[in-house]
Amino acid sequence: MRLCRFDDNRLGVVRGAAKALTVHDVTTILDALPSWRYPLPDHDPLIAALPGLRDRIEALADAAPGIPVGNVRLLPPVASPRKIVAAPVSYRLHHEEALADQTIHHGTNIIPIDKAGLFLKAPSSLIGASEPVVIRFPEARNDHEIELVAIIGTRADRVSRDQALSRVAGYAVGLDMTVRGTQERSMRKSCDSYTVLGPWLVTADEIPDPSALEMHLTVNGETRQKTSTANLLRDVAALIEKASAFYTLMPGDLLFTGTPEGVAPVVSGDVMMAWIAGIGEMEITVR
Amino acid sequence: MRLCRFDDNRLGVVRGAAKALTVHDVTTILDALPSWRYPLPDHDPLIAALPGLRDRIEALADAAPGIPVGNVRLLPPVASPRKIVAAPVSYRLHHEEALADQTIHHGTNIIPIDKAGLFLKAPSSLIGASEPVVIRFPEARNDHEIELVAIIGTRADRVSRDQALSRVAGYAVGLDMTVRGTQERSMRKSCDSYTVLGPWLVTADEIPDPSALEMHLTVNGETRQKTSTANLLRDVAALIEKASAFYTLMPGDLLFTGTPEGVAPVVSGDVMMAWIAGIGEMEITVR
Repeated sequence: MRLCRFDDNRLGVVRGAAKALTVHDVTTILDALPSWRYPLPDHDPLIAALPGLRDRIEALADAAPGIPVGNVRLLPPVASPRKIVAAPVSYRLHHEEALADQTIHHGTNIIPIDKAGLFLKAPSSLIGASEPVVIRFPEARNDHEIELVAIIGTRADRVSRDQALSRVAGYAVGLDMTVRGTQERSMRKSCDSYTVLGPWLVTADEIPDPSALEMHLTVNGETRQKTSTANLLRDVAALIEKASAFYTLMPGDLLFTGTPEGVAPVVSGDVMMAWIAGIGEMEITVR
Repeated sequence: MRLCRFDDNRLGVVRGAAKALTVHDVTTILDALPSWRYPLPDHDPLIAALPGLRDRIEALADAAPGIPVGNVRLLPPVASPRKIVAAPVSYRLHHEEALADQTIHHGTNIIPIDKAGLFLKAPSSLIGASEPVVIRFPEARNDHEIELVAIIGTRADRVSRDQALSRVAGYAVGLDMTVRGTQERSMRKSCDSYTVLGPWLVTADEIPDPSALEMHLTVNGETRQKTSTANLLRDVAALIEKASAFYTLMPGDLLFTGTPEGVAPVVSGDVMMAWIAGIGEMEITVR
Protein backbone atom coordinates (compact mmCIF):
# COMPACT_ATOMS: atom_id res chain seq x y z
CA MET A 1 0.00 0.00 0.00
CA ARG A 2 1.17 3.52 -0.80
CA LEU A 3 -0.10 6.08 1.71
CA CYS A 4 0.13 9.84 1.26
CA ARG A 5 -0.86 12.98 3.15
CA PHE A 6 -2.11 15.79 0.94
CA ASP A 7 -3.71 19.23 0.78
CA ASP A 8 -5.09 20.24 4.17
CA ASN A 9 -4.00 17.11 6.12
CA ARG A 10 -6.02 14.67 4.06
CA LEU A 11 -4.95 11.02 3.94
CA GLY A 12 -4.86 9.12 0.65
CA VAL A 13 -4.01 5.78 -0.89
CA VAL A 14 -1.98 6.01 -4.10
CA ARG A 15 -2.87 3.53 -6.84
CA GLY A 16 -1.95 2.95 -10.47
CA ALA A 17 1.39 3.13 -12.24
CA ALA A 18 3.85 5.74 -13.51
CA LYS A 19 1.90 8.30 -15.55
CA ALA A 20 -1.56 7.36 -14.25
CA LEU A 21 -1.17 7.57 -10.47
CA THR A 22 -4.30 8.46 -8.56
CA VAL A 23 -4.97 9.42 -4.94
CA HIS A 24 -7.98 7.90 -3.16
CA ASP A 25 -9.14 9.91 -0.16
CA VAL A 26 -9.37 7.86 3.05
CA THR A 27 -9.27 10.78 5.49
CA THR A 28 -12.23 9.53 7.52
CA ILE A 29 -10.00 6.75 8.93
CA LEU A 30 -8.31 9.44 11.06
CA ASP A 31 -11.48 9.46 13.22
CA ALA A 32 -10.37 6.02 14.44
CA LEU A 33 -7.24 7.48 16.07
CA PRO A 34 -7.26 8.36 19.78
CA SER A 35 -7.33 12.03 20.75
CA TRP A 36 -4.74 13.52 23.07
CA ARG A 37 -4.50 16.50 25.37
CA TYR A 38 -1.44 16.39 27.65
CA PRO A 39 1.03 14.89 27.49
CA LEU A 40 1.20 14.14 23.77
CA PRO A 41 2.23 10.61 22.79
CA ASP A 42 5.89 9.75 22.27
CA HIS A 43 5.18 8.34 18.80
CA ASP A 44 3.25 9.06 15.59
CA PRO A 45 -0.32 7.89 16.27
CA LEU A 46 -1.18 7.01 12.66
CA ILE A 47 1.93 4.93 12.06
CA ALA A 48 1.41 3.13 15.39
CA ALA A 49 -2.21 2.30 14.50
CA LEU A 50 -1.56 1.41 10.86
CA PRO A 51 -1.44 -2.42 11.13
CA GLY A 52 -4.93 -2.49 12.64
CA LEU A 53 -6.35 -0.01 10.13
CA ARG A 54 -5.03 -1.35 6.82
CA ASP A 55 -8.08 -3.37 5.82
CA ARG A 56 -10.42 -0.48 6.51
CA ILE A 57 -8.11 1.93 4.65
CA GLU A 58 -8.10 -0.35 1.59
CA ALA A 59 -11.90 -0.60 1.71
CA LEU A 60 -12.24 3.19 1.93
CA ALA A 61 -9.86 3.57 -1.01
CA ASP A 62 -11.89 1.08 -3.08
CA ALA A 63 -14.94 3.30 -2.62
CA ALA A 64 -13.21 6.64 -3.29
CA PRO A 65 -12.82 8.24 -6.72
CA GLY A 66 -9.26 8.68 -7.97
CA ILE A 67 -7.74 12.15 -8.07
CA PRO A 68 -4.74 12.53 -10.41
CA VAL A 69 -1.67 12.76 -8.19
CA GLY A 70 -0.63 15.95 -10.00
CA ASN A 71 -3.74 17.66 -8.67
CA VAL A 72 -2.88 17.30 -4.98
CA ARG A 73 -0.29 18.99 -2.80
CA LEU A 74 1.81 16.32 -1.09
CA LEU A 75 2.71 16.72 2.59
CA PRO A 76 5.23 14.57 4.48
CA PRO A 77 3.66 11.08 4.72
CA VAL A 78 4.60 10.94 8.42
CA ALA A 79 3.15 14.00 10.16
CA SER A 80 4.69 13.75 13.61
CA PRO A 81 8.03 11.95 13.78
CA ARG A 82 9.61 12.47 17.19
CA LYS A 83 13.12 11.51 16.05
CA ILE A 84 14.76 11.84 12.67
CA VAL A 85 17.90 9.68 12.74
CA ALA A 86 20.38 9.86 9.88
CA ALA A 87 23.52 8.04 8.81
CA PRO A 88 26.66 9.90 7.70
CA VAL A 89 29.14 8.59 5.11
CA SER A 90 27.06 5.50 4.32
CA TYR A 91 28.50 4.81 0.88
CA ARG A 92 32.22 4.25 0.25
CA LEU A 93 32.40 6.57 -2.76
CA HIS A 94 30.66 9.38 -0.88
CA HIS A 95 33.16 8.99 1.95
CA GLU A 96 35.98 9.31 -0.59
CA GLU A 97 34.52 12.43 -2.21
CA ALA A 98 33.97 14.02 1.22
CA LEU A 99 37.59 13.39 2.22
CA ALA A 100 38.87 14.82 -1.07
CA ASP A 101 36.85 18.04 -1.17
CA GLN A 102 37.61 20.87 1.26
CA THR A 103 34.24 22.50 0.47
CA ILE A 104 32.59 19.36 1.86
CA HIS A 105 34.78 18.55 4.88
CA HIS A 106 35.69 22.15 5.91
CA GLY A 107 38.67 20.88 7.86
CA THR A 108 36.56 18.65 10.12
CA ASN A 109 37.60 15.03 10.22
CA ILE A 110 35.19 12.87 8.24
CA ILE A 111 35.51 9.62 10.17
CA PRO A 112 34.01 6.33 8.97
CA ILE A 113 30.42 5.54 9.90
CA ASP A 114 31.49 2.82 12.35
CA LYS A 115 33.23 5.48 14.41
CA ALA A 116 30.96 8.43 13.61
CA GLY A 117 27.69 6.80 14.61
CA LEU A 118 24.41 8.37 13.60
CA PHE A 119 23.13 11.93 13.95
CA LEU A 120 19.76 13.60 14.49
CA LYS A 121 17.83 16.06 12.34
CA ALA A 122 15.23 18.44 13.79
CA PRO A 123 11.57 17.46 13.17
CA SER A 124 10.93 21.15 12.46
CA SER A 125 12.95 20.75 9.24
CA LEU A 126 10.47 18.27 7.72
CA ILE A 127 8.55 19.07 4.51
CA GLY A 128 6.67 17.06 1.89
CA ALA A 129 7.23 16.58 -1.82
CA SER A 130 5.11 19.55 -2.92
CA GLU A 131 6.84 22.06 -0.69
CA PRO A 132 9.97 23.95 -1.73
CA VAL A 133 13.38 23.70 -0.09
CA VAL A 134 14.12 27.28 1.01
CA ILE A 135 17.85 27.96 1.10
CA ARG A 136 18.62 29.32 4.57
CA PHE A 137 22.20 30.46 3.94
CA PRO A 138 22.61 31.43 0.26
CA GLU A 139 26.23 32.45 0.88
CA ALA A 140 27.14 28.88 1.92
CA ARG A 141 27.25 25.66 -0.08
CA ASN A 142 23.86 23.91 0.20
CA ASP A 143 23.89 20.31 -1.08
CA HIS A 144 21.30 17.75 -2.10
CA GLU A 145 21.60 14.26 -0.59
CA ILE A 146 19.13 11.62 -1.78
CA GLU A 147 18.54 8.80 0.71
CA LEU A 148 16.34 5.78 1.27
CA VAL A 149 14.29 6.41 4.42
CA ALA A 150 12.95 3.64 6.67
CA ILE A 151 9.90 4.55 8.75
CA ILE A 152 9.84 2.76 12.09
CA GLY A 153 6.56 0.94 12.75
CA THR A 154 6.94 -0.58 16.20
CA ARG A 155 9.01 0.18 19.29
CA ALA A 156 12.61 -0.93 18.87
CA ASP A 157 14.90 -1.08 21.89
CA ARG A 158 18.23 -2.87 21.34
CA VAL A 159 16.98 -5.05 18.50
CA SER A 160 19.35 -7.38 16.72
CA ARG A 161 20.10 -7.07 13.02
CA ASP A 162 17.99 -10.11 12.15
CA GLN A 163 14.96 -8.72 13.99
CA ALA A 164 15.36 -5.16 12.76
CA LEU A 165 13.39 -5.19 9.50
CA SER A 166 10.31 -6.49 11.33
CA ARG A 167 10.16 -3.08 13.05
CA VAL A 168 9.83 -1.13 9.76
CA ALA A 169 6.40 0.19 8.74
CA GLY A 170 7.50 1.32 5.31
CA TYR A 171 9.88 3.30 3.15
CA ALA A 172 10.01 6.67 1.45
CA VAL A 173 12.39 8.81 -0.56
CA GLY A 174 14.31 11.38 1.49
CA LEU A 175 16.42 14.42 0.81
CA ASP A 176 18.89 15.26 3.56
CA MET A 177 19.62 18.84 2.54
CA THR A 178 22.90 20.05 3.98
CA VAL A 179 24.68 23.32 4.63
CA ARG A 180 28.42 22.63 4.40
CA GLY A 181 30.50 24.02 7.24
CA THR A 182 32.30 23.16 10.44
CA GLN A 183 29.18 22.84 12.60
CA GLU A 184 27.64 19.68 14.03
CA ARG A 185 25.70 17.78 11.39
CA SER A 186 22.62 17.92 13.63
CA MET A 187 22.62 21.71 13.15
CA ARG A 188 23.74 22.13 9.53
CA LYS A 189 21.16 19.59 8.35
CA SER A 190 18.23 20.85 10.46
CA CYS A 191 17.36 24.17 8.80
CA ASP A 192 13.63 24.63 8.19
CA SER A 193 12.70 22.72 4.98
CA TYR A 194 16.03 20.81 4.86
CA THR A 195 14.41 17.39 5.39
CA VAL A 196 12.19 16.26 2.51
CA LEU A 197 10.12 13.08 2.87
CA GLY A 198 7.94 11.72 0.11
CA PRO A 199 6.29 11.33 -2.19
CA TRP A 200 4.44 8.81 0.00
CA LEU A 201 5.03 5.90 2.38
CA VAL A 202 5.25 2.46 0.73
CA THR A 203 4.47 -0.24 3.28
CA ALA A 204 7.28 -2.67 4.01
CA ASP A 205 5.48 -5.67 2.50
CA GLU A 206 5.98 -4.08 -0.94
CA ILE A 207 9.76 -3.71 -0.43
CA PRO A 208 10.95 -7.23 0.39
CA ASP A 209 14.64 -6.28 0.01
CA PRO A 210 15.56 -2.68 0.90
CA SER A 211 19.16 -3.52 -0.04
CA ALA A 212 18.42 -3.81 -3.75
CA LEU A 213 16.84 -0.48 -4.68
CA GLU A 214 18.14 1.66 -7.53
CA MET A 215 18.08 5.39 -6.80
CA HIS A 216 18.63 8.45 -8.89
CA LEU A 217 18.71 12.22 -8.37
CA THR A 218 18.79 14.84 -11.09
CA VAL A 219 19.06 18.62 -10.88
CA ASN A 220 17.46 20.49 -13.78
CA GLY A 221 17.40 17.20 -15.69
CA GLU A 222 21.09 16.41 -15.23
CA THR A 223 22.06 13.28 -13.29
CA ARG A 224 23.93 14.03 -10.07
CA GLN A 225 23.52 10.93 -7.87
CA LYS A 226 22.87 7.38 -9.06
CA THR A 227 23.47 4.17 -7.20
CA SER A 228 21.78 1.18 -5.57
CA THR A 229 21.17 0.61 -1.87
CA ALA A 230 23.19 -2.57 -2.46
CA ASN A 231 26.20 -0.27 -1.99
CA LEU A 232 25.28 0.83 1.53
CA LEU A 233 28.21 0.23 3.91
CA ARG A 234 25.62 -0.61 6.58
CA ASP A 235 22.24 -1.81 5.40
CA VAL A 236 18.89 -0.77 6.87
CA ALA A 237 18.85 -3.63 9.37
CA ALA A 238 22.36 -2.83 10.62
CA LEU A 239 21.48 0.86 10.98
CA ILE A 240 18.38 0.01 13.05
CA GLU A 241 20.46 -2.30 15.22
CA LYS A 242 22.99 0.49 15.78
CA ALA A 243 20.42 3.24 16.47
CA SER A 244 18.35 1.12 18.83
CA ALA A 245 21.48 0.22 20.78
CA PHE A 246 21.66 3.88 21.85
CA TYR A 247 17.98 4.84 22.12
CA THR A 248 14.50 3.41 21.76
CA LEU A 249 13.03 3.91 18.30
CA MET A 250 9.30 4.64 18.26
CA PRO A 251 6.52 4.35 15.63
CA GLY A 252 6.95 7.18 13.14
CA ASP A 253 10.63 7.76 13.83
CA LEU A 254 12.50 8.22 10.56
CA LEU A 255 15.81 6.63 9.63
CA PHE A 256 17.66 8.36 6.79
CA THR A 257 20.12 5.73 5.60
CA GLY A 258 22.78 7.98 4.08
CA THR A 259 23.62 9.36 0.66
CA PRO A 260 25.77 8.07 -2.19
CA GLU A 261 28.44 9.96 -4.10
CA GLY A 262 27.55 12.89 -6.34
CA VAL A 263 26.47 15.42 -3.71
CA ALA A 264 26.62 18.93 -5.12
CA PRO A 265 25.22 22.41 -4.48
CA VAL A 266 21.79 23.67 -5.45
CA VAL A 267 20.66 27.27 -5.71
CA SER A 268 17.34 29.08 -5.91
CA GLY A 269 15.45 28.13 -9.05
CA ASP A 270 16.88 24.61 -9.32
CA VAL A 271 14.51 21.67 -9.61
CA MET A 272 15.55 18.34 -8.06
CA MET A 273 13.98 15.04 -9.16
CA ALA A 274 14.53 12.22 -6.68
CA TRP A 275 13.54 8.65 -7.51
CA ILE A 276 13.90 5.29 -5.74
CA ALA A 277 12.75 2.07 -7.38
CA GLY A 278 9.64 0.57 -5.82
CA ILE A 279 8.75 3.83 -4.08
CA GLY A 280 8.36 6.57 -6.67
CA GLU A 281 9.70 9.95 -7.65
CA MET A 282 9.28 13.49 -6.41
CA GLU A 283 10.16 16.84 -7.91
CA ILE A 284 11.34 19.47 -5.45
CA THR A 285 11.87 23.13 -6.17
CA VAL A 286 14.67 25.13 -4.53
CA ARG A 287 13.87 28.69 -3.51
CA MET B 1 5.92 30.66 39.47
CA ARG B 2 7.47 27.22 39.82
CA LEU B 3 5.58 24.58 37.85
CA CYS B 4 6.15 20.84 38.16
CA ARG B 5 4.73 17.64 36.70
CA PHE B 6 4.45 14.79 39.16
CA ASP B 7 3.16 11.30 39.83
CA ASP B 8 0.79 10.17 37.07
CA ASN B 9 1.02 13.33 34.88
CA ARG B 10 -0.32 15.69 37.53
CA LEU B 11 0.53 19.38 37.32
CA GLY B 12 1.60 21.30 40.41
CA VAL B 13 2.74 24.71 41.60
CA VAL B 14 5.73 24.60 43.96
CA ARG B 15 5.68 27.06 46.85
CA GLY B 16 7.72 27.71 49.97
CA ALA B 17 11.47 27.72 50.55
CA ALA B 18 14.34 25.26 50.90
CA LYS B 19 13.32 22.63 53.46
CA ALA B 20 9.58 23.38 53.37
CA LEU B 21 8.70 23.15 49.69
CA THR B 22 5.15 22.08 48.92
CA VAL B 23 3.38 21.06 45.71
CA HIS B 24 -0.13 22.41 45.05
CA ASP B 25 -2.12 20.31 42.59
CA VAL B 26 -3.52 22.32 39.64
CA THR B 27 -4.07 19.37 37.28
CA THR B 28 -7.60 20.47 36.36
CA ILE B 29 -6.10 23.33 34.31
CA LEU B 30 -5.08 20.71 31.72
CA ASP B 31 -8.77 20.51 30.73
CA ALA B 32 -8.32 24.00 29.25
CA LEU B 33 -5.84 22.68 26.66
CA PRO B 34 -7.03 21.77 23.15
CA SER B 35 -7.26 18.11 22.21
CA TRP B 36 -5.49 16.73 19.16
CA ARG B 37 -5.88 13.74 16.89
CA TYR B 38 -3.76 13.98 13.73
CA PRO B 39 -1.44 15.61 13.08
CA LEU B 40 -0.10 16.40 16.53
CA PRO B 41 1.02 19.98 17.15
CA ASP B 42 4.59 21.02 16.43
CA HIS B 43 5.01 22.42 19.95
CA ASP B 44 4.29 21.64 23.61
CA PRO B 45 0.64 22.62 24.17
CA LEU B 46 0.98 23.49 27.86
CA ILE B 47 4.00 25.74 27.42
CA ALA B 48 2.31 27.47 24.47
CA ALA B 49 -0.84 28.13 26.50
CA LEU B 50 0.92 29.09 29.74
CA PRO B 51 0.76 32.91 29.47
CA GLY B 52 -3.04 32.78 29.20
CA LEU B 53 -3.41 30.26 32.03
CA ARG B 54 -1.13 31.70 34.72
CA ASP B 55 -3.79 33.58 36.69
CA ARG B 56 -6.07 30.55 36.81
CA ILE B 57 -3.15 28.29 37.77
CA GLU B 58 -2.25 30.59 40.68
CA ALA B 59 -5.87 30.64 41.82
CA LEU B 60 -6.08 26.84 41.69
CA ALA B 61 -2.83 26.62 43.67
CA ASP B 62 -4.19 29.01 46.32
CA ALA B 63 -7.11 26.63 46.87
CA ALA B 64 -5.07 23.40 46.90
CA PRO B 65 -3.49 21.88 50.01
CA GLY B 66 0.30 21.60 49.99
CA ILE B 67 1.94 18.21 49.56
CA PRO B 68 5.55 18.01 50.79
CA VAL B 69 7.74 17.91 47.66
CA GLY B 70 9.47 14.81 49.00
CA ASN B 71 6.18 12.92 48.77
CA VAL B 72 5.77 13.28 45.00
CA ARG B 73 7.57 11.70 42.06
CA LEU B 74 8.83 14.48 39.77
CA LEU B 75 8.48 14.09 36.00
CA PRO B 76 10.12 16.34 33.40
CA PRO B 77 8.37 19.74 33.72
CA VAL B 78 8.03 19.90 29.92
CA ALA B 79 6.26 16.76 28.73
CA SER B 80 6.55 17.05 24.97
CA PRO B 81 9.53 19.01 23.71
CA ARG B 82 9.95 18.54 19.97
CA LYS B 83 13.57 19.69 19.90
CA ILE B 84 16.24 19.48 22.53
CA VAL B 85 19.06 21.79 21.44
CA ALA B 86 22.36 21.76 23.31
CA ALA B 87 25.58 23.75 23.30
CA PRO B 88 28.99 22.04 23.30
CA VAL B 89 32.13 23.52 24.94
CA SER B 90 30.26 26.51 26.39
CA TYR B 91 32.73 27.29 29.17
CA ARG B 92 36.40 28.03 28.54
CA LEU B 93 37.71 25.76 31.30
CA HIS B 94 35.58 22.85 30.08
CA HIS B 95 36.99 23.34 26.57
CA GLU B 96 40.50 23.18 28.03
CA GLU B 97 39.82 20.01 30.04
CA ALA B 98 38.25 18.35 26.97
CA LEU B 99 41.29 19.16 24.83
CA ALA B 100 43.66 17.82 27.49
CA ASP B 101 41.94 14.51 28.24
CA GLN B 102 42.00 11.68 25.68
CA THR B 103 39.17 9.90 27.51
CA ILE B 104 36.99 12.95 26.78
CA HIS B 105 38.03 13.85 23.22
CA HIS B 106 38.71 10.29 21.91
CA GLY B 107 40.83 11.69 19.09
CA THR B 108 37.98 13.79 17.68
CA ASN B 109 38.74 17.45 17.27
CA ILE B 110 37.01 19.52 19.95
CA ILE B 111 36.51 22.75 18.05
CA PRO B 112 35.32 25.98 19.72
CA ILE B 113 31.59 26.59 20.03
CA ASP B 114 31.65 29.34 17.39
CA LYS B 115 32.76 26.75 14.84
CA ALA B 116 31.01 23.68 16.30
CA GLY B 117 27.54 25.16 16.46
CA LEU B 118 24.84 23.42 18.49
CA PHE B 119 23.71 19.80 18.55
CA LEU B 120 20.43 17.96 19.15
CA LYS B 121 19.46 15.42 21.80
CA ALA B 122 16.65 12.90 21.26
CA PRO B 123 13.37 13.70 23.07
CA SER B 124 13.18 9.99 23.91
CA SER B 125 16.13 10.53 26.28
CA LEU B 126 14.17 12.88 28.57
CA ILE B 127 13.47 12.02 32.23
CA GLY B 128 12.46 13.95 35.33
CA ALA B 129 14.19 14.50 38.65
CA SER B 130 12.71 11.44 40.38
CA GLU B 131 13.72 8.98 37.68
CA PRO B 132 17.13 7.26 37.61
CA VAL B 133 19.77 7.67 34.93
CA VAL B 134 20.29 4.13 33.63
CA ILE B 135 23.80 3.62 32.30
CA ARG B 136 23.45 2.28 28.76
CA PHE B 137 27.09 1.32 28.15
CA PRO B 138 28.75 0.42 31.47
CA GLU B 139 31.99 -0.44 29.68
CA ALA B 140 32.34 3.18 28.43
CA ARG B 141 32.93 6.42 30.32
CA ASN B 142 29.56 7.99 31.20
CA ASP B 143 29.82 11.60 32.42
CA HIS B 144 27.58 14.03 34.26
CA GLU B 145 27.21 17.53 32.76
CA ILE B 146 25.12 20.04 34.72
CA GLU B 147 23.61 22.82 32.59
CA LEU B 148 21.20 25.71 32.81
CA VAL B 149 18.25 24.94 30.51
CA ALA B 150 16.10 27.62 28.87
CA ILE B 151 12.58 26.54 27.91
CA ILE B 152 11.33 28.31 24.79
CA GLY B 153 7.92 29.93 25.26
CA THR B 154 7.07 31.45 21.89
CA ARG B 155 8.02 30.77 18.29
CA ALA B 156 11.52 32.07 17.49
CA ASP B 157 12.66 32.29 13.89
CA ARG B 158 15.89 34.26 13.33
CA VAL B 159 15.54 36.39 16.44
CA SER B 160 18.26 38.86 17.35
CA ARG B 161 20.18 38.63 20.58
CA ASP B 162 18.35 41.57 22.14
CA GLN B 163 14.94 40.02 21.39
CA ALA B 164 15.92 36.48 22.39
CA LEU B 165 15.13 36.44 26.11
CA SER B 166 11.55 37.56 25.42
CA ARG B 167 11.02 34.12 23.83
CA VAL B 168 11.90 32.20 27.02
CA ALA B 169 9.06 30.72 29.11
CA GLY B 170 11.30 29.67 31.96
CA TYR B 171 14.35 27.85 33.19
CA ALA B 172 15.21 24.50 34.73
CA VAL B 173 18.23 22.49 35.83
CA GLY B 174 19.50 20.02 33.24
CA LEU B 175 21.86 17.08 33.16
CA ASP B 176 23.32 16.35 29.73
CA MET B 177 24.51 12.81 30.42
CA THR B 178 27.19 11.76 27.97
CA VAL B 179 28.83 8.58 26.74
CA ARG B 180 32.39 9.45 25.73
CA GLY B 181 33.48 8.14 22.34
CA THR B 182 34.07 9.07 18.74
CA GLN B 183 30.40 9.21 17.73
CA GLU B 184 28.33 12.29 16.92
CA ARG B 185 27.28 14.11 20.07
CA SER B 186 23.64 13.80 18.97
CA MET B 187 23.99 10.01 19.38
CA ARG B 188 26.26 9.68 22.43
CA LYS B 189 24.10 12.10 24.42
CA SER B 190 20.71 10.66 23.40
CA CYS B 191 20.59 7.32 25.22
CA ASP B 192 17.30 6.69 27.02
CA SER B 193 17.39 8.58 30.37
CA TYR B 194 20.49 10.65 29.40
CA THR B 195 18.60 13.98 29.47
CA VAL B 196 17.41 15.02 32.92
CA LEU B 197 15.18 18.10 33.31
CA GLY B 198 13.96 19.37 36.63
CA PRO B 199 13.15 19.68 39.37
CA TRP B 200 10.54 22.12 37.94
CA LEU B 201 10.19 25.02 35.53
CA VAL B 202 10.76 28.48 37.02
CA THR B 203 9.04 31.11 34.91
CA ALA B 204 11.32 33.67 33.30
CA ASP B 205 9.97 36.59 35.35
CA GLU B 206 11.65 35.05 38.42
CA ILE B 207 15.07 34.87 36.70
CA PRO B 208 15.74 38.45 35.56
CA ASP B 209 19.39 37.68 34.67
CA PRO B 210 20.16 34.11 33.49
CA SER B 211 23.82 35.14 33.20
CA ALA B 212 24.34 35.44 36.95
CA LEU B 213 23.32 32.04 38.33
CA GLU B 214 25.59 30.01 40.56
CA MET B 215 25.48 26.26 39.86
CA HIS B 216 26.85 23.25 41.63
CA LEU B 217 26.95 19.49 41.08
CA THR B 218 28.05 16.90 43.61
CA VAL B 219 28.43 13.13 43.28
CA ASN B 220 27.98 11.21 46.54
CA GLY B 221 28.39 14.50 48.38
CA GLU B 222 31.67 15.47 46.72
CA THR B 223 31.79 18.65 44.61
CA ARG B 224 32.52 17.96 40.94
CA GLN B 225 31.24 21.02 39.02
CA LYS B 226 30.85 24.53 40.41
CA THR B 227 30.64 27.76 38.47
CA SER B 228 28.35 30.64 37.52
CA THR B 229 26.53 31.15 34.22
CA ALA B 230 28.46 34.43 34.14
CA ASN B 231 31.26 32.29 32.69
CA LEU B 232 29.27 31.11 29.65
CA LEU B 233 31.22 31.82 26.45
CA ARG B 234 27.86 32.52 24.78
CA ASP B 235 25.01 33.55 27.03
CA VAL B 236 21.41 32.33 26.75
CA ALA B 237 20.40 35.16 24.42
CA ALA B 238 23.32 34.53 22.07
CA LEU B 239 22.57 30.79 21.99
CA ILE B 240 18.93 31.46 21.07
CA GLU B 241 20.04 33.86 18.35
CA LYS B 242 22.39 31.19 16.97
CA ALA B 243 19.88 28.32 17.14
CA SER B 244 17.03 30.31 15.62
CA ALA B 245 19.30 31.36 12.74
CA PHE B 246 19.29 27.69 11.67
CA TYR B 247 15.79 26.54 12.61
CA THR B 248 12.55 27.79 14.12
CA LEU B 249 12.34 27.25 17.86
CA MET B 250 8.88 26.34 19.15
CA PRO B 251 7.12 26.51 22.53
CA GLY B 252 8.48 23.72 24.72
CA ASP B 253 11.75 23.33 22.84
CA LEU B 254 14.62 23.00 25.31
CA LEU B 255 17.97 24.75 25.09
CA PHE B 256 20.75 23.15 27.15
CA THR B 257 23.31 25.92 27.48
CA GLY B 258 26.44 23.81 28.00
CA THR B 259 28.43 22.52 30.95
CA PRO B 260 31.34 23.93 32.94
CA GLU B 261 34.59 22.19 33.85
CA GLY B 262 34.63 19.24 36.23
CA VAL B 263 32.87 16.63 34.09
CA ALA B 264 33.66 13.14 35.34
CA PRO B 265 32.31 9.60 35.15
CA VAL B 266 29.48 8.17 37.21
CA VAL B 267 28.66 4.51 37.79
CA SER B 268 25.70 2.55 39.07
CA GLY B 269 24.92 3.44 42.67
CA ASP B 270 26.16 7.03 42.47
CA VAL B 271 23.88 9.85 43.56
CA MET B 272 24.17 13.21 41.79
CA MET B 273 22.90 16.43 43.36
CA ALA B 274 22.45 19.26 40.86
CA TRP B 275 21.60 22.80 42.00
CA ILE B 276 21.20 26.13 40.24
CA ALA B 277 20.48 29.32 42.20
CA GLY B 278 16.96 30.65 41.76
CA ILE B 279 15.72 27.32 40.41
CA GLY B 280 16.34 24.58 42.94
CA GLU B 281 18.12 21.30 43.40
CA MET B 282 17.48 17.74 42.35
CA GLU B 283 18.97 14.44 43.44
CA ILE B 284 19.40 11.86 40.70
CA THR B 285 20.35 8.23 41.17
CA VAL B 286 22.53 6.35 38.69
CA ARG B 287 21.64 2.75 37.94
